[in-house]
Amino acid sequence: MAGRLPSSQVHADDDVVAFMDIRPANVGHLLVVPRVHKAGLEALDEQLGAKVFAVAHRLARALRASGVRCDGVNMLLADGAAAGQEVFHVHMHVLPRFAGDGFGLNVRWLSPDRAELDTAAALIRASLDRLPM
Amino acid sequence: MAGRLPSSQVHADDDVVAFMDIRPANVGHLLVVPRVHKAGLEALDEQLGAKVFAVAHRLARALRASGVRCDGVNMLLADGAAAGQEVFHVHMHVLPRFAGDGFGLNVRWLSPDRAELDTAAALIRASLDRLPM
Repeated sequence: MAGRLPSSQVHADDDVVAFMDIRPANVGHLLVVPRVHKAGLEALDEQLGAKVFAVAHRLARALRASGVRCDGVNMLLADGAAAGQEVFHVHMHVLPRFAGDGFGLNVRWLSPDRAELDTAAALIRASLDRLPM
Repeated sequence: MAGRLPSSQVHADDDVVAFMDIRPANVGHLLVVPRVHKAGLEALDEQLGAKVFAVAHRLARALRASGVRCDGVNMLLADGAAAGQEVFHVHMHVLPRFAGDGFGLNVRWLSPDRAELDTAAALIRASLDRLPM
């Protein structure tokens, strides 16, 4: 990053850069990255996170009108090895999608009842209340 | 939404609400949603998008400290049917992850050369320049 490696850039400002993923899931697969090194979401400043998202948002809109094959867009962020993060510098994937592109999710969907949902929600609300700003 | 259906809420402010997904991939799977109805990213105001992300960011941090099983977090947004969007009101998934949870991606990774990456980047930059604010 920071010009040390060749990259095919699509956006650069004082805080955020975006460039082509060199191992894309589809043609047009982009990475949006804060310039400052932050390994993950815990270390990332809230305002900077919002800037990363704003660039990803504009790129998602741009992809659809770019001529790159794109009938839909996924944004995907992996925070932590358990979530599939491999490069420990926060990055948002912006991925053009089309029918039959071979991209998909493997999921074991759960069917909790309302009491189970409420229990999880109460734990998360309590944690949110304890969260340092 | 808007109180018409039961939900297990974890956050509510003037612009954004967040609640448990009733068909979760893991316990603690959250949806973050703007109150105003916007089908997708094209219609979503940039500032509102940044607010949705900021709430998702705080919830990702809260999940890790909540007691819900969470060793990592994925954020995922699907824009358009081709991207797997099923409910046409913008929503960000915030998904707690742990090893062996059965969640994963099916991807046919590509290996483009630099010229191919540069060609896609040029198309996307041109589209970004044409994008209405």
